Amino acid sequence: MTADSRPARPTLLGQNQYGKAENRVVRIVRDGATHRIKDLNVSVALSGAMDDVHYSGSNANVLPTDTTKNTVFAFAKEHGIESAEAFGVHLARHFVTSQEQIHRARIRIEEYGWERIGATGHSFARTGQETRTTEITFDGRGFQVISGLKDLVVLNSTDSEFWGYAKDEYTTLKETHDRILATEVTARWRFSWTGEDETEGDGAENGDAPAWEETYAQVRGHLLEAFAGTYSLSLQQTLYAMGSRVIEHHAGIDEVRLSLPNKHHFLVDLEPFGLKNDNEVYVAADRPYGLIEGTVLRDGAEARIPVTD
Amino acid sequence: MTADSRPARPTLLGQNQYGKAENRVVRIVRDGATHRIKDLNVSVALSGAMDDVHYSGSNANVLPTDTTKNTVFAFAKEHGIESAEAFGVHLARHFVTSQEQIHRARIRIEEYGWERIGATGHSFARTGQETRTTEITFDGRGFQVISGLKDLVVLNSTDSEFWGYAKDEYTTLKETHDRILATEVTARWRFSWTGEDETEGDGAENGDAPAWEETYAQVRGHLLEAFAGTYSLSLQQTLYAMGSRVIEHHAGIDEVRLSLPNKHHFLVDLEPFGLKNDNEVYVAADRPYGLIEGTVLRDGAEARIPVTD
Amino acid sequence: MTADSRPARPTLLGQNQYGKAENRVVRIVRDGATHRIKDLNVSVALSGAMDDVHYSGSNANVLPTDTTKNTVFAFAKEHGIESAEAFGVHLARHFVTSQEQIHRARIRIEEYGWERIGATGHSFARTGQETRTTEITFDGRGFQVISGLKDLVVLNSTDSEFWGYAKDEYTTLKETHDRILATEVTARWRFSWTGEDETEGDGAENGDAPAWEETYAQVRGHLLEAFAGTYSLSLQQTLYAMGSRVIEHHAGIDEVRLSLPNKHHFLVDLEPFGLKNDNEVYVAADRPYGLIEGTVLRDGAEARIPVTD
Amino acid sequence: MTADSRPARPTLLGQNQYGKAENRVVRIVRDGATHRIKDLNVSVALSGAMDDVHYSGSNANVLPTDTTKNTVFAFAKEHGIESAEAFGVHLARHFVTSQEQIHRARIRIEEYGWERIGATGHSFARTGQETRTTEITFDGRGFQVISGLKDLVVLNSTDSEFWGYAKDEYTTLKETHDRILATEVTARWRFSWTGEDETEGDGAENGDAPAWEETYAQVRGHLLEAFAGTYSLSLQQTLYAMGSRVIEHHAGIDEVRLSLPNKHHFLVDLEPFGLKNDNEVYVAADRPYGLIEGTVLRDGAEARIPVTD
Repeated sequence: MTADSRPARPTLLGQNQYGKAENRVVRIVRDGATHRIKDLNVSVALSGAMDDVHYSGSNANVLPTDTTKNTVFAFAKEHGIESAEAFGVHLARHFVTSQEQIHRARIRIEEYGWERIGATGHSFARTGQETRTTEITFDGRGFQVISGLKDLVVLNSTDSEFWGYAKDEYTTLKETHDRILATEVTARWRFSWTGEDETEGDGAENGDAPAWEETYAQVRGHLLEAFAGTYSLSLQQTLYAMGSRVIEHHAGIDEVRLSLPNKHHFLVDLEPFGLKNDNEVYVAADRPYGLIEGTVLRDGAEARIPVTD
Repeated sequence: MTADSRPARPTLLGQNQYGKAENRVVRIVRDGATHRIKDLNVSVALSGAMDDVHYSGSNANVLPTDTTKNTVFAFAKEHGIESAEAFGVHLARHFVTSQEQIHRARIRIEEYGWERIGATGHSFARTGQETRTTEITFDGRGFQVISGLKDLVVLNSTDSEFWGYAKDEYTTLKETHDRILATEVTARWRFSWTGEDETEGDGAENGDAPAWEETYAQVRGHLLEAFAGTYSLSLQQTLYAMGSRVIEHHAGIDEVRLSLPNKHHFLVDLEPFGLKNDNEVYVAADRPYGLIEGTVLRDGAEARIPVTD
Repeated sequence: MTADSRPARPTLLGQNQYGKAENRVVRIVRDGATHRIKDLNVSVALSGAMDDVHYSGSNANVLPTDTTKNTVFAFAKEHGIESAEAFGVHLARHFVTSQEQIHRARIRIEEYGWERIGATGHSFARTGQETRTTEITFDGRGFQVISGLKDLVVLNSTDSEFWGYAKDEYTTLKETHDRILATEVTARWRFSWTGEDETEGDGAENGDAPAWEETYAQVRGHLLEAFAGTYSLSLQQTLYAMGSRVIEHHAGIDEVRLSLPNKHHFLVDLEPFGLKNDNEVYVAADRPYGLIEGTVLRDGAEARIPVTD
Repeated sequence: MTADSRPARPTLLGQNQYGKAENRVVRIVRDGATHRIKDLNVSVALSGAMDDVHYSGSNANVLPTDTTKNTVFAFAKEHGIESAEAFGVHLARHFVTSQEQIHRARIRIEEYGWERIGATGHSFARTGQETRTTEITFDGRGFQVISGLKDLVVLNSTDSEFWGYAKDEYTTLKETHDRILATEVTARWRFSWTGEDETEGDGAENGDAPAWEETYAQVRGHLLEAFAGTYSLSLQQTLYAMGSRVIEHHAGIDEVRLSLPNKHHFLVDLEPFGLKNDNEVYVAADRPYGLIEGTVLRDGAEARIPVTD
C-alpha cells in the first residue's frame, strides 16, 4: 500500500481476494482411438498487495481476472490435467511465483465424472453422482490441499434409531427404533502434504505428493462403507464413524470435515385409510431438515479446514 | 356446469385441470435383510365437470388436492410400486372411475435411481444420472403412456462435423470437421398400449401391458448406442438416429420426441500464448445454446406427444 | 425432403424445430446523461423444410443456430428494442421472409425489469419481482403474440375459505373458513392482433399493433387487483376472476391461461406448547403443492394457448 | 465428554454443530383490517458438550433438531417477530440459557420482503429483489449480530473504466474507458452491539440494541448510493467505497464484508454485419465471472466476519 493512496477515511481494508471464478475447462486426451476426458470448473482467488486498487482504483498491481482465466486454459495444454489437485498445484504456484505482488493463491476446482458408453472409445455419459472438489492454497512457502466431494446422496432403510434425547417444553418428537437415515454428503479432507521440499522444483517430480486419483477413490469408498456399515443411534455417530474411517486408513490425511443434512423420510400415517404402515411408505421431506456438521481430526493434528456453514 | 352459476361475463372457461403436484413418495420393500427402494415424485392433474368451482367457487365437485395426495401414499401401500408406469395406471384409473365428475386423470412421475452400497442389503446411493419420467393419462376409455428420461448428459469427443450449411449476411460461423458433440437428453416415448381390453379389470392382471422396467433399460440403451454410434454431420441427424433406433427395436413404441440442447464446447484459442490447440482444450459454454427438438414416428402412427417447448 | 435422402426405415420425421436458445441481449439507449436499459433473454425456434438434415445430415437448408444468435444482437442495434414484443415481431418476420426453407419462426423472450437508483441517470437495480415473457410466432401469413409473466408471488392473509368439497375414503382435510391464499402467478395472454394487414411493411409503422408496454402494465395491474379483490372460496374461483378481468378490460386480448400453484401456508399447531394460534403463525410448505391451471376465453374466441403443463 | 465413551481411535472430534435448518415461518399480525407479514427462513445451529453423541451415539445431551424447529414456531407466537434480528436474539439466548450442555447458538435468518397490493390491507406481492439476511450468535456472554443482504443485482451503464493493470504472457484483455459495471451484491455488516449489559434481562428492554429495521433500510440505501455514485476504475474501488460509506454513516457498525461477482456485459462485435456498436448492445455472460471479495473495517476494529467464500 502507498500511504498516500489511502483516502482520509476512518476505515481500513481487511482480508480481500479476487480472481476469475468458474472457468469451465474440458481437456481431451487422445490415445489413438481411445480418448480420456477431464471436466473441471476452476475458480481462482488471489491475494496480496492490493490496497491501492481498493483505495484509489489504481490497477498497477492487478493481474486481470481475464488473465487468470487465460492461464487456466493455457495450463490445461501446457501441463495437462493429470488430476484436479495436480492441476491446481501448478496454477497456485504460478500466480504466487510469477507476480511479486501476489502473496497467496487459492484454486478451487469442481470435477464432473464421465463414464464410457458404446464401444467407440470417444463416447461418454456424465455419471451425475457426486461432484468431486478440491481446494489448493499456496502462500509461497507451502501448499494446503483440501479435497472432497458433494451431492452424494445415501440412504439406509433400516439400522437407524433415535431415542434417549434431551427434552424440554417444546419437545414433541416421538422416539424411534427403526427409521430411514438419509443424507447428502459434503465431505472435505485435508492432506498433510505441503510440498515444502519441492516448491523450487518444476512440479513434474512431485515425488512425494499423494496419489490424488487413487486416494479419492479410496476415501469415497471408506465414506460409503462407514455410512452403510454403521448401526446408527444418531447422525452424529455416523458422521464421526465416516470421518474416523478415512483418517484411520489414510496416513496422509489429518482432518475431515463433514456436513450431513438429515434428509428426513417421515413414515406416512395410513391409519385413516385402514392401512398399517409397517415401515414401507415414507414421504421424503424438503424443508426444514436437520443439519449435522463436524470435524474429525487425527490425534495431535491442528484443525485448519474452515467452518464455513 | 350449472347455467345459473356462471356470472354474466363475456368470458368462458376453457381447458382446466387441478391436483396435487410433487408428492415425494418412497416405498421400501423388505425381502428379509435385502431391501428394495422406489423413489418417486408423483403429480396428479384431474379434469372434468369443474365449471362451477371456477364460476362460483362451489367446491361440490372438487375432490381436494389433499385427498389426491393421500391417495398416492395409500396406493403405495395397497398396490405397491412395481414400476412408475404401473403405479400411475392404478392412480389414473382410480380417480376417473371413482369420481363421476372427473373425466380425465393425468399422472406424471419422476423416478430417481438408487444403487446398492456396502454389503448390508439396506444401504443405497442415489445414482444421480438421468431422471426417469412417465406420464399416464386415462379418460375412462383408454390409457396413454408416455415414458422418458431427462438430465442425461452425453458427449462424443470426435466423429462430429458441421459444415455445408445455409449462410446469410449474419453468418460468421466457421465450418468444422471435428468437434465435440454434447447434449443433455430429454426423451419421451409413447407406447401403443392403451389397455382398452382390460380397463374393467383390477389392473393386477395387466397381461398385455408392456414390461415397463425392462423396456426402460432397453430404450435407454438404444438411445445411448445411437448417440455413440452415429458419425454426426448435424445434431438433427443424431436426433433422428436416436429416435428411429428406439422405434425399430420396440414394436410397442410408436413415437419418440427428443429435445437436445447443443451443449457447446468451444475450442479455446491458445495461439496468443504460443500454443497449438489440437482439439485438446475446450471451454464448456452455458448460454446461449443450440436447441434441437423433433419427433420420430412409426410409419403410419399419429403424433400425440405434445410439443411443449 | 429429397426422397433419396430418407433411409429405408420404418420411421418418419414429425414436428421439429431448432434455433439458438437463451441469447442474453442487453440494450442501452443513451439519451444524454439519462440511459434506458432493456434486458432480454431471447430464444429462437425455426421450422420448415428440414427433412434432409434429419435423414442424411445435409445442412444445406440449415441456417446455423449461431447465425440466429448473431441476428438477435444485430437486430438490437438495427431496430432497437422498443418492447420485447416489437423486437420479436422483427425477428420472426425476418427468419421466415429471408430464408425460403424456413416456414415458421417462434421467438420466446424473457424480460428482466430494472429500476433507477441514485441520481446518475445510468444506475439501476434489477427489480427482481416477476419475469415478463412473450412468445411471437410467424408462419408467413400472420403473427400470434402470447405475452405473460411468471415468478410473481402473491398472498392474501385472509378472505379465503375452502369447504364443501367432495369427499372419498382418502379424504382427511379439515374444512377452513379463514386461510392464507398464496400463489406464484404464471400468466399468458393471447392478443387477437395478427398483423396480417401489414406483414409486407417494414414493421416500423406497426400502426395497429397493441401498445405492448402499456398493455403489459395494465394487465399486470388487473391480475393483481383481481387476486387481491376476490373473496375466495377456491383458488379456481380466483383464477377465473383474474383471467376474466383481463379479458373484460382489454378488447385486444382473447385468451388468458393461468397456472397457479397453491403455495400452502399451514397453520402451526401450537397447542402442545400451551399456545393458541389465532391465524398468526404459519409454516410455508414447499412440496407437495396444489396446482390449479385453466384457460379463460373471450366468448366466441378459439383456444390457442397450448396446454404445456 | 465422558472419557469412557470415546472409542480407542487415533482420532478426535473437532468443531461441530447441529440444528434444524430452513424453518419457513410466516407471521401475520392483524391490526384490524390491516395485516402485516413477516416471512422468514430460520436455521438453528447449536454447539456444546456433544462428544458423547459422536463417540457413542448417546443422545442424552442432544435436544432434537425437531425441538429447535418447534421452538422457532412457538417463539413466533410468544415473542412475535419485530425484526429478524430481535427474533434471532430471543432464540439464541433461549437455547444457551435453557440447556446447560449447549454453549453456543447461532441463528441464521433469511427474510423475504412483501409489498402491499390492492386496497384490502391483507394482500401482498413478494418484492423479489434482495433477500435480507442476519446471523445472531450467542455464547452465554455476548451476542454477535451480522446482518446483510444478497441477490441484489445492480448495474451502471457508464462511468466505469478498467486499464493500467499488470500484464503477463497470458494477458490478452483490451483496456477500456467505458464499460458496463454490474454485480450481484452480497453484503454482511457486523454490529458492535453485544448486548452484554442486558443478557440477564428478558430481552424486552433491549434498550441499547440497534434499530434493526431502520438500520437495514439505511445501510441498503448507502450501498446503492455508493455503487451508483462511484466513478469506478475497478470493482475493488467500488467495493471499498460501498463498505466505507456504510461504516462512516453508522457508528454501530464496525465491519462490512462484500462479495461482488463481476457480472460481465461484453460489447458485441457487430462489425461483421457492417454495424457500429457505440456502447449500445451487450451480451450478458454467465460464466466465468470475476469475483471480488473484501472486508472494510472501522479503524481499530477487529475483523470477525468469517471469510467463507
